Amino acid sequence: MSKPVKPLILVTNDDGIFAPGIRYISNVLKAFGEVCVVAPDKPQSGMGHAITLNSSIRLSNTQYHDVALEYACSGTPVDCVKIAVNHILKRRPDLVVSGINHGSNASINVIYSGTMSAAVEGALEGAPSIGISLCDYSEAAVFHHAEQYLKHIISNVLRHQLPKGLCLNINIPAVQTTPLQGIRVVRQAHAQWVERFEERQDPYGRNYYWLTGNFVNFEPESTDTDEAALSANYIAVVPVKADMTAHEHLATIKQFEHV
Amino acid sequence: MSKPVKPLILVTNDDGIFAPGIRYISNVLKAFGEVCVVAPDKPQSGMGHAITLNSSIRLSNTQYHDVALEYACSGTPVDCVKIAVNHILKRRPDLVVSGINHGSNASINVIYSGTMSAAVEGALEGAPSIGISLCDYSEAAVFHHAEQYLKHIISNVLRHQLPKGLCLNINIPAVQTTPLQGIRVVRQAHAQWVERFEERQDPYGRNYYWLTGNFVNFEPESTDTDEAALSANYIAVVPVKADMTAHEHLATIKQFEHV
Repeated sequence: MSKPVKPLILVTNDDGIFAPGIRYISNVLKAFGEVCVVAPDKPQSGMGHAITLNSSIRLSNTQYHDVALEYACSGTPVDCVKIAVNHILKRRPDLVVSGINHGSNASINVIYSGTMSAAVEGALEGAPSIGISLCDYSEAAVFHHAEQYLKHIISNVLRHQLPKGLCLNINIPAVQTTPLQGIRVVRQAHAQWVERFEERQDPYGRNYYWLTGNFVNFEPESTDTDEAALSANYIAVVPVKADMTAHEHLATIKQFEHV
Repeated sequence: MSKPVKPLILVTNDDGIFAPGIRYISNVLKAFGEVCVVAPDKPQSGMGHAITLNSSIRLSNTQYHDVALEYACSGTPVDCVKIAVNHILKRRPDLVVSGINHGSNASINVIYSGTMSAAVEGALEGAPSIGISLCDYSEAAVFHHAEQYLKHIISNVLRHQLPKGLCLNINIPAVQTTPLQGIRVVRQAHAQWVERFEERQDPYGRNYYWLTGNFVNFEPESTDTDEAALSANYIAVVPVKADMTAHEHLATIKQFEHV
């Protein structure tokens, strides 16, 4: 009998290869298969689905993590998935995990998030993919309270796969005095960042700006959203796809065909 | 009688403020209202929905275009829309136009595209928004063949608005010997880039990589997609929204709740 092949698991993130979140999840994943880390060599938060077209990409074979194979990549989170799947790995991964992100990627954050864009890219590359985020920006954030739930999701995805092209957006409430209530499969809440640009002056008298903003949930009363699940101390799981067509509006917009 | 207020039109792009496409559309838009250009100070293709979080943003008051107000911005296309709406403009624009992009943003390109991400951001900011792309990468590309159709869409959007949160992804076939056949309102085709990383060596013997790829349409037989419309020499219009939830899979994924 030949030795069974262990699942091949690609791990990336957007906080960079040194972030505590990627260290934590890489260790958890070692129980499930052969772990390969290909992650940005610097923080890449808010990079969305950016790819590197106007410059070239560097790879460094690093050993920050105790895993089978590891590279720091000069590109974006999506670049990391592309170069891992199409250049570094010998076969398509059985699972792509992006995270654990330091900070929420629930609701509208999904479109700004490098973490989730890497998971979407994994799904486009044909691999079951999940993005994991913790609603705590702190470098000292703890992840243990979610471990049994993450293991449940990971083993399920490895065993049953996910529908083609689909990935999961998993958000974990920050640790609280009461334990997590469980998992809720929900939809993306309708929310938005309301921005303010903070104007400052450099030592040469020229203005520069920092993007700041407040998160506004437009449907705080809804119970079937990721924001509602998180508020109730549940892990929120949203199935995400790369089709941005507003199918429900196709019929209305058809009027534009009549020139 | 007070003077009627002209529509306020914000124009941005991802090819940068010097690109021929933004010059062309800004001139067309002057017939429809007061045009303000806030566009990246350098090419930002493939930036997706990236925003600038780890550094600050610069604005330069420029005069490359013959418009009411104009700024070159050091940030991404999405940054341009955010800083225009929340800092530069005195009121919410009546229309946000992103483009005209040099190159297709049909099908899966919508998620990588800075042009379309700026349009999505415009919709999130509550303004009717359209992204326009020409299926021709050439700097010398011509846009005139589409002008009557673009004017038709622009005047319609200004008159009737768009459903809240929706934007339009407009792709124009490159000019051909036969005239454009009209406009088709369609869905995003299921397609993908199949990548290959070209490995090179720098003068110091270290490897670097260029992202290259081939576009693959997984449903060339479908007639209701943007790719099909473009192939038939029609302008393709896809209604796009920022909700990435795979609503059709919510019920299946519910199984994950049973720990």
